[in-house]
Amino acid sequence: MAAPAASASAAFRRVYDTLKDELLRDPAFDFNDDAIRWLDGMLDYNVLGGNLNRGLAVIESYKLLKAGSEPSEEEVFLAYILGWGIEWVGLIAINDGLVLRSQISQIFRRYFFGKIYYVDLLDLFNEVEFKTTSGELLDQIITNEGRKDLNKYTVHIYRRIVEYKTAYYSFYLPVACALLLSGQSLDDYVQVKKILVEMGVYFQIQDDYLDCFGDPDVIDKIGTDIENFKCSWLFVQALQRADDKQKDVLFENYGKPDPACVAKVKALYKELALERVFSEYERESYEKLISDIEAQPSETVQAVLKSFLHRIYKRK
Amino acid sequence: MAAPAASASAAFRRVYDTLKDELLRDPAFDFNDDAIRWLDGMLDYNVLGGNLNRGLAVIESYKLLKAGSEPSEEEVFLAYILGWGIEWVGLIAINDGLVLRSQISQIFRRYFFGKIYYVDLLDLFNEVEFKTTSGELLDQIITNEGRKDLNKYTVHIYRRIVEYKTAYYSFYLPVACALLLSGQSLDDYVQVKKILVEMGVYFQIQDDYLDCFGDPDVIDKIGTDIENFKCSWLFVQALQRADDKQKDVLFENYGKPDPACVAKVKALYKELALERVFSEYERESYEKLISDIEAQPSETVQAVLKSFLHRIYKRK
Repeated sequence: MAAPAASASAAFRRVYDTLKDELLRDPAFDFNDDAIRWLDGMLDYNVLGGNLNRGLAVIESYKLLKAGSEPSEEEVFLAYILGWGIEWVGLIAINDGLVLRSQISQIFRRYFFGKIYYVDLLDLFNEVEFKTTSGELLDQIITNEGRKDLNKYTVHIYRRIVEYKTAYYSFYLPVACALLLSGQSLDDYVQVKKILVEMGVYFQIQDDYLDCFGDPDVIDKIGTDIENFKCSWLFVQALQRADDKQKDVLFENYGKPDPACVAKVKALYKELALERVFSEYERESYEKLISDIEAQPSETVQAVLKSFLHRIYKRK
Repeated sequence: MAAPAASASAAFRRVYDTLKDELLRDPAFDFNDDAIRWLDGMLDYNVLGGNLNRGLAVIESYKLLKAGSEPSEEEVFLAYILGWGIEWVGLIAINDGLVLRSQISQIFRRYFFGKIYYVDLLDLFNEVEFKTTSGELLDQIITNEGRKDLNKYTVHIYRRIVEYKTAYYSFYLPVACALLLSGQSLDDYVQVKKILVEMGVYFQIQDDYLDCFGDPDVIDKIGTDIENFKCSWLFVQALQRADDKQKDVLFENYGKPDPACVAKVKALYKELALERVFSEYERESYEKLISDIEAQPSETVQAVLKSFLHRIYKRK
């Protein structure tokens, strides 16, 4: 296709800068410069790589459709955004993940098109997908950074990763689906969302705890978080509590396959009384969840939340 | 989480079978057993791999929300579908493609939520994404099969790949976006969609032609379709026209980096008069497109379609 006019192209580019700025300022990444830098570079590299003809075709077609009446600044802006949507779509390379993703849309359209909650359903899955992929991305970036400098594993980062990567899709999403099916508006359940996300975080912390302190016969796997350099709840708690000498032990032995190194890390966890720290967290978290749940006005909603909580609390 | 009841689990599994059957029967793959087999295995491997707890949580929560009144068969079915949506989402592994995908949703929600065409916009991008990823998938599968047996490269398969992989997103999507922005309903533009897809197919055929017969200085690249085993329009045309001896030449020399092999394939293309075949296709395709465009009731829509056509027709 022929090259687009230079001026339209420059205006189109400026809209990209706006969109990118907004994406980089997403709360998913708000206190992590490594992630923001990576995302910035990834976007420029991929999204700006094409010739932009497809994207610019929206504004050109739109002007023709308006047949002489000049579109407003706002209308041009929206046309440019859809143009960038097309550039983004064009980047979708083949892989199982994207095939699966587009299958959900296909299935939902077949069965839910025309239902009053159809658009809310699409929005819900889009939101949770954004959270989940952002969480995975953050996890990957932080694990890479952590290999170079274990101080990158902080309590804040830990919580962010867990919330985004696991809690929304495992805990909030099933209940939100059920609420939509029952004719409810999700806007009325902001508190329920917070409670479910909190349960998801608790679930993951418990998982990390069991990886080290659980009975392998009961949890049905042998924990390997220490060997694998994982940004685990136990590690971030240990780092927060360790003195300089204990930190040295942690940094020297974390992420090594040698069983002697693993044993030293576990010994340090015990020395720092992390078993007690976990029990306390578990108790407090349970009490807070129960009181938040019982503050919900609907008894059926309470029943849903309690059924989730009792499935996971004090799991061995 | 605790294991779900066996009967709910079995009913949930049956819904998966229904959904999978429908996906496998999608027109994207309807005459290609290799693709269907691959997709079938891929789905079972990925989607059935989990413990299904998150998916089953929808029906459980839904029943609790209905507080005693038993959901109908239809309601249970819909809850199961959402449950499978969650299982599908959970599979989304980290990669740039999915991050980019979820960014579009994020951007569109920010700028288009509340517009009358919001849900149509989401549906449009979902549809085109499904087409594009299916096309990429098909291309990958067929290229793999082609390496083993070049007879797999047929005119039918060629067209399907090009239509799905390129035409929808490069030609239909920009115009469909402009139509939505202009307040039109896409249901009224089924013919326009067909015309644009046809232009996209023409564009790709031209691209394949220029890869071999274009002037490298003008097209700004040196063609490598022959070396790279590509399912190219020239190859499928040659295969259709070649006698047994010519087929031997084709099969012996296609997909080899040796310049002597490439030269033999090109010589055969000339021998089969593919340059003339292309000119004829180009002329016929142009005439058909013009007459289809001029049959459109709206003059502004005609202008949009013609601007696309003139940008690509007789491109060198």
